[in-house]
Amino acid sequence: MKAWIITIGDELLIGQTVDTNSAFIGAELSKAGFDIERKISIHDRRDDILQTFRGINPDVQLLICTGGLGPTSDDITKQTLCEVFDTRLVPDREVLTRVEEMMSRRGFPMNENNRLQAMVPENCRVIPNEMGTAPGMLFEKDAAMFIFMPGVPFEMKHMMTEHVIPILKERFNTQSIIHKNIMTYGAPEALLAEMLSAFESALPEELSLAYLPSSGVIKLRLTASGKDRGMLEKIIGEQVAKLYQKIPDLIYGEDEKPLEKVVGELLAERKQTLSTAESCTGGKIAQMLTSVVGSSAYFMGSVVAYDNSVKRKLLGVPGELLDKHGAVSEEVVTAMAEGVRRVTGTDYSVATSGIAGPDGGSPSKPVGTVWIAVSSDKGTVTEKYVYGSDRHQNILRSSNAALNLLRLQIIRK
Amino acid sequence: MKAWIITIGDELLIGQTVDTNSAFIGAELSKAGFDIERKISIHDRRDDILQTFRGINPDVQLLICTGGLGPTSDDITKQTLCEVFDTRLVPDREVLTRVEEMMSRRGFPMNENNRLQAMVPENCRVIPNEMGTAPGMLFEKDAAMFIFMPGVPFEMKHMMTEHVIPILKERFNTQSIIHKNIMTYGAPEALLAEMLSAFESALPEELSLAYLPSSGVIKLRLTASGKDRGMLEKIIGEQVAKLYQKIPDLIYGEDEKPLEKVVGELLAERKQTLSTAESCTGGKIAQMLTSVVGSSAYFMGSVVAYDNSVKRKLLGVPGELLDKHGAVSEEVVTAMAEGVRRVTGTDYSVATSGIAGPDGGSPSKPVGTVWIAVSSDKGTVTEKYVYGSDRHQNILRSSNAALNLLRLQIIRK
Repeated sequence: MKAWIITIGDELLIGQTVDTNSAFIGAELSKAGFDIERKISIHDRRDDILQTFRGINPDVQLLICTGGLGPTSDDITKQTLCEVFDTRLVPDREVLTRVEEMMSRRGFPMNENNRLQAMVPENCRVIPNEMGTAPGMLFEKDAAMFIFMPGVPFEMKHMMTEHVIPILKERFNTQSIIHKNIMTYGAPEALLAEMLSAFESALPEELSLAYLPSSGVIKLRLTASGKDRGMLEKIIGEQVAKLYQKIPDLIYGEDEKPLEKVVGELLAERKQTLSTAESCTGGKIAQMLTSVVGSSAYFMGSVVAYDNSVKRKLLGVPGELLDKHGAVSEEVVTAMAEGVRRVTGTDYSVATSGIAGPDGGSPSKPVGTVWIAVSSDKGTVTEKYVYGSDRHQNILRSSNAALNLLRLQIIRK
Repeated sequence: MKAWIITIGDELLIGQTVDTNSAFIGAELSKAGFDIERKISIHDRRDDILQTFRGINPDVQLLICTGGLGPTSDDITKQTLCEVFDTRLVPDREVLTRVEEMMSRRGFPMNENNRLQAMVPENCRVIPNEMGTAPGMLFEKDAAMFIFMPGVPFEMKHMMTEHVIPILKERFNTQSIIHKNIMTYGAPEALLAEMLSAFESALPEELSLAYLPSSGVIKLRLTASGKDRGMLEKIIGEQVAKLYQKIPDLIYGEDEKPLEKVVGELLAERKQTLSTAESCTGGKIAQMLTSVVGSSAYFMGSVVAYDNSVKRKLLGVPGELLDKHGAVSEEVVTAMAEGVRRVTGTDYSVATSGIAGPDGGSPSKPVGTVWIAVSSDKGTVTEKYVYGSDRHQNILRSSNAALNLLRLQIIRK
């Protein structure tokens, strides 16, 4: 069952907007059993839209398209669709009512642009947009289904989950594709591949393995495809069990789970609490932890001690330590972790201090040098890393390293 | 001058990885004067790679491709390229030396996978990869140039900036495309479009306008294309001046600049300092501020006061206020802002307290209710917002709202 995803918008091509929509749609379609054969981004231009629709492979049964449905005049998709599906725009009373309600709730007046959004192609099925003003649309042509959604990510996501997926499940009888992700931390890609080379060559033919690295975390993705879903689940389960035997120390979780979520679950199970004291990560660890729903049960708070005065005043780091060893040192990161644990009264604390870059390094402490500490009643442990010169990568890698060190301390006997 | 971007990898199609590479490449090519006509993501499969290369429009002069060059066996691009460009893989001594050096610096042993990375198609020009082990490759065929880069984002970005862009500038004589972005905050898209409808209809024919909304910020993008770069710059400058007259209160900056950067520049100019006290935003504002290079000059730190005990102990919020009004209240957010300013001694402070969701709301304080405060020697100002039920959106919108309120306070006379 082949599907294509098309995203429309100049901003995607000139790189002003990262296309997160197609990733979300791809994941949802994949779960529903579709083989996503291609993703294409094109301009908000009549000719490009028409050419792309004409170029769709004849065996594609589902086309999902986002973007180009907004209230502003740079969006010309709807008019072009009337050409493709040989129809015209007519007003839709239900959509109009919804737009009117939404604008009044937000306290803004209705205007001509809002009224244009309630115009839809005559022969389409309207898909409601509960999160915004632009309606979704569904067409059937030849043996394929065409679905159009707005490009605003949270509007599209809601429409996809609440309306489109149920429609697809009803309409298509899909063959099974199962993915299983095993999350690892601690070995770089080539080394991990070497450790797993015998495992990989011995995989059953229904299975394939991919390595997906991201800021220190490497996701191993096993994919199984075939007719018999139960059989595929059994085969994939056997291989996952083998992986746990091969690399038990490197696996920290499954199924796309980020480290912050695994750590949160461990703390919640144990009814324990956490605080962070962040210098070079600048609040990133707190932000990752609090992105998890329910984190207020175990995460008490953080002191982002960017300036040394904050390290002294709020964390009680002694001035002499800062003078003698510098902020980026084992001594200071230890004092930060112990300090934040003391003032917040948490079971665990994490601290970071490093040189995120791109400037500020020295021969003895180059850019990318990072100290990490985790403190608990099991004691305080530290680690030193030397990353590269990319500020963003250094912040992300340090945050993942800190969360993994915390994880190891929590599960330590 | 038409260009296509192709990204290879199953993970992109099934949505496990968001394709940020093509956005970066699109932005760089656009700046260099290319018209990016299409972006395509395909599987790491021989047939799909071959079909896509055969389907490239004949007038495309540049094809840039990323992914499928890693050390693991799920990457088959290099072998397939030998078919496309009718050649074979041969070892490259320079690449091998680079890989050996890199592995030894990181303290990992060389293995067979690393050695495979030093194999390159015989008739390609090797593009060095200073950030990783997989080399880039350049082919010329008919009138078009084909460039292949690894898929790891920071490796690709370095290769693109340091090597590919200089090569393209030398090889192509590009026509000019100029983008100018005007960043706004404070009016939703349809209202902004209404305010600008006369402006938009009066635009010169070389220009087009697009609206790109993201978590409360709306970017207005003016695009000019033509032969005479100087003329285009003049025309676009005139229209930007008009925009500043039309919506002076809504414009906060230009050129993709996020609010955290604008705020940072304002503080740096004035040699003033900032701290934050975050409840519902959970460190997001600190993380945004510290993502900016040089932020240590003005950002002193943050107290992420997720739990009420931290609000009391570290920010001095009186227990009676919390009991009487609840954490999500004007009184508490005011005390948080004033408290963090007192303990850090900064010129400005920002505080947030709200219900990020998806749970935890009540009839009088629904999910999405957020109080924001900014404190300085000009006094403390507050704002209340009621967003929706999406946790991630609520955190982002609150953070942007807080940064904009801070901006308005800094520039207030």
